[in-house]
Amino acid sequence: MNPVIDLLKSHRSIRKFTSQALSPEQIDAIVTSAQAASTSSNVQAYSIIAVTEPAIRLELARLAGSQAYVEQSGLFLVFCADLHRIRQATEQQGETFHQNTESFIVATVDAALAAQNAAVAAESMGLGVCYIGSIRNEIDSVSRLLRLPELVYPVFGLTIGVPDQAPSPRPRLPKQAVVHENTYKPEQAAAGVQAYDEVMSEYYQTRAGGKAVTNWSRSIADKYRKPVRAHMRSFLDAQGFRLD
Amino acid sequence: MNPVIDLLKSHRSIRKFTSQALSPEQIDAIVTSAQAASTSSNVQAYSIIAVTEPAIRLELARLAGSQAYVEQSGLFLVFCADLHRIRQATEQQGETFHQNTESFIVATVDAALAAQNAAVAAESMGLGVCYIGSIRNEIDSVSRLLRLPELVYPVFGLTIGVPDQAPSPRPRLPKQAVVHENTYKPEQAAAGVQAYDEVMSEYYQTRAGGKAVTNWSRSIADKYRKPVRAHMRSFLDAQGFRLD
Repeated sequence: MNPVIDLLKSHRSIRKFTSQALSPEQIDAIVTSAQAASTSSNVQAYSIIAVTEPAIRLELARLAGSQAYVEQSGLFLVFCADLHRIRQATEQQGETFHQNTESFIVATVDAALAAQNAAVAAESMGLGVCYIGSIRNEIDSVSRLLRLPELVYPVFGLTIGVPDQAPSPRPRLPKQAVVHENTYKPEQAAAGVQAYDEVMSEYYQTRAGGKAVTNWSRSIADKYRKPVRAHMRSFLDAQGFRLD
Repeated sequence: MNPVIDLLKSHRSIRKFTSQALSPEQIDAIVTSAQAASTSSNVQAYSIIAVTEPAIRLELARLAGSQAYVEQSGLFLVFCADLHRIRQATEQQGETFHQNTESFIVATVDAALAAQNAAVAAESMGLGVCYIGSIRNEIDSVSRLLRLPELVYPVFGLTIGVPDQAPSPRPRLPKQAVVHENTYKPEQAAAGVQAYDEVMSEYYQTRAGGKAVTNWSRSIADKYRKPVRAHMRSFLDAQGFRLD
């Protein structure tokens, strides 16, 4: 279609990087692109922590489950949902700040939109990226390490660098499972999942050298048959977020 | 830097479109790009409703506060956070589905990452976009209109079409307000907000022909001095989401 769409379609997560640092120009392009993303009513309810200090990166890697690529990429950004700055602006104007589930959604979405622009900008320069949701494993320790104030939470990290591997894009759910016309059709989605299970069964077998006999539904069931990161709500409460 | 970064940096929301429809190839490129975005552990916890039926678009425009550009663009997509498909896959494997605030975040983020790729893809083809958060104004009616099942909620709409206006990008907060090195520095952010207030005061005055005497902090305070969309939590509860 065009080179931008080709770029978007060729995305794959990179989990092995060379040790090459990013240039200040590259970092500036990534951050400026992030800031140019859409934001709800211009509230810009997110912040970015650029982690450059090796000791902090090492500790982040440990907290995220010892992922070498958290520590060893050219750049590590933590995208945070941020209502702190907005509360400060509101109170500085002599008003009382109101928050709820809606403002939590706004801040979380703003962080994600900015991050995806950062990811696309990085990939346009030939860099690779990987989102690091596992910084939420020990979200309280991560937040203290980065000295996040009340009303700021780390949504995910983004590790960016020069790729030292060339994986293929992973197959996605077929369109029928994800895209609906006018109204949501559960049966259509279920049929799409069934078709995807066959695709992914083959994909997993090829990748695992025939050892893994599973499919997408099974991998989802294995993940969600027990609570994942059950500490999240109590962390957010302690961090000052109100989900009412 | 490069054409992709130039594209990202030139983003501005479009709120007036020609009546030109999108071609099937354009729609396919937008949706495929959305699906190529990163997703937490490949869970792909989002769905897209492509609203093509004029009566549904008209009703959506009314529910979103009569925004003509919801009704009159070439394409209207509703991005939904979707745990329904994941629960179905889990239960079909004979397991009990567990959800909490963490899975709510995952689904919301997945919807946002996909949407931002869709926005970038559209803009790469010379189209304009505007995120429509106001579909959350009457989120219950919107969800019934689109027949969203339990565990699916509409995060925002994305209206896409051929621009019939050429606004300039809106200034963003200075980097010092948004980007921190290693640790979050509230004073640095506050200084950045103060600088931005001056920029935006001038920007608002220019745009409003000298009538508006306000700044960013004031606009934020006006928004957050009262609860915004206070119905969100009870809607999500009724839709089956558990935020514990």
